[in-house]
Amino acid sequence: MTKVITSASMSLDGYISGPGESGFEHLFGWHRTGDVEVATARPDMAFKVTPQTGEHLRRLVDGTGALVVGRKLFDLTQGWGGSHPFGGPVFVVTHTAPDAWPHQGFTFVTDGVESAVRQAAEVAGGKAVGVAAGDMARQALAAGLIDEFWVDLVPVLLGGGTPFFNAVTDVPLVLDDPDVVQGRGVTHLVYRLHSRA
Amino acid sequence: MTKVITSASMSLDGYISGPGESGFEHLFGWHRTGDVEVATARPDMAFKVTPQTGEHLRRLVDGTGALVVGRKLFDLTQGWGGSHPFGGPVFVVTHTAPDAWPHQGFTFVTDGVESAVRQAAEVAGGKAVGVAAGDMARQALAAGLIDEFWVDLVPVLLGGGTPFFNAVTDVPLVLDDPDVVQGRGVTHLVYRLHSRA
Repeated sequence: MTKVITSASMSLDGYISGPGESGFEHLFGWHRTGDVEVATARPDMAFKVTPQTGEHLRRLVDGTGALVVGRKLFDLTQGWGGSHPFGGPVFVVTHTAPDAWPHQGFTFVTDGVESAVRQAAEVAGGKAVGVAAGDMARQALAAGLIDEFWVDLVPVLLGGGTPFFNAVTDVPLVLDDPDVVQGRGVTHLVYRLHSRA
Repeated sequence: MTKVITSASMSLDGYISGPGESGFEHLFGWHRTGDVEVATARPDMAFKVTPQTGEHLRRLVDGTGALVVGRKLFDLTQGWGGSHPFGGPVFVVTHTAPDAWPHQGFTFVTDGVESAVRQAAEVAGGKAVGVAAGDMARQALAAGLIDEFWVDLVPVLLGGGTPFFNAVTDVPLVLDDPDVVQGRGVTHLVYRLHSRA
């Protein structure tokens, strides 16, 4: 069965964005704290990180075969200009597909996140399906679809905002001990569901 | 200046107790996951942990010179039978001191947590003052008194309950990258305030 993962930068007090959509300079500060460039499909979006974080990011990118994202993120980024930095097939969950979208690699899914994950799994080539943090991850969490949480734990307290895990309904949910990679401005923690280990 | 620390077992979603005071079998499961016995002042409360966790706990205990606890915890434990497992001086924050308390090592403080921390610092012998998780830690957090957070991050999602960090008002609060010790059923993370590094 295809593994489904989600990843997010989360503050120590559990938020993926601070009050009033603030705090991103803290949550994503670690993207630029080192000398190792991690290339993406878009040269303008390369990370500059420590060797440890670089290896961790490559493990994530190399292990992911397809992505599921929401329409909100797609619109916010204007569809990544037609070229998502991930480079693989992208499934956009939406109520209505855009009239014209000439770029390769994007599939618009109008029957929900479960369908999108299923379709993504079919083309992931044995790799994982990544579900973008935010609305999509919350819907996938609520549907019990997530097997692994890649938490980039950031040493900051934001005091409020959007929690990463508030949609988990099947609680208590026991996870295995994580893989731990200490970065600069971030602690990378990879958790698997205990029951699916 | 005396360092003030607080420690707690916290779920990955940020709670030190689950909904309706639940979840403690998860949060404290790591106290009994190894062969290394960490003695306390009370033989009936020894931990059985991994070597790594044992070393971590000894670092915490050896580095702490005095404790501040709340009256609620004091009453719940019936004053630890007069012998707190920590073994050092204990300052109990309360509205009214008990009429009779024959045991050595306990001081009842009726003018608040700041006073208790100050008094504890005077007898800590250069070591840290530990503030117990729960009400006392929240009051100390709100007063900006905490220098270090010893977070025992437990791989479970509880979905609700009492958050560890909800009293931090001076946000965003930037911390340094933590010391990390991977245990069994727990990831030990020690964070320091960045501005006090």
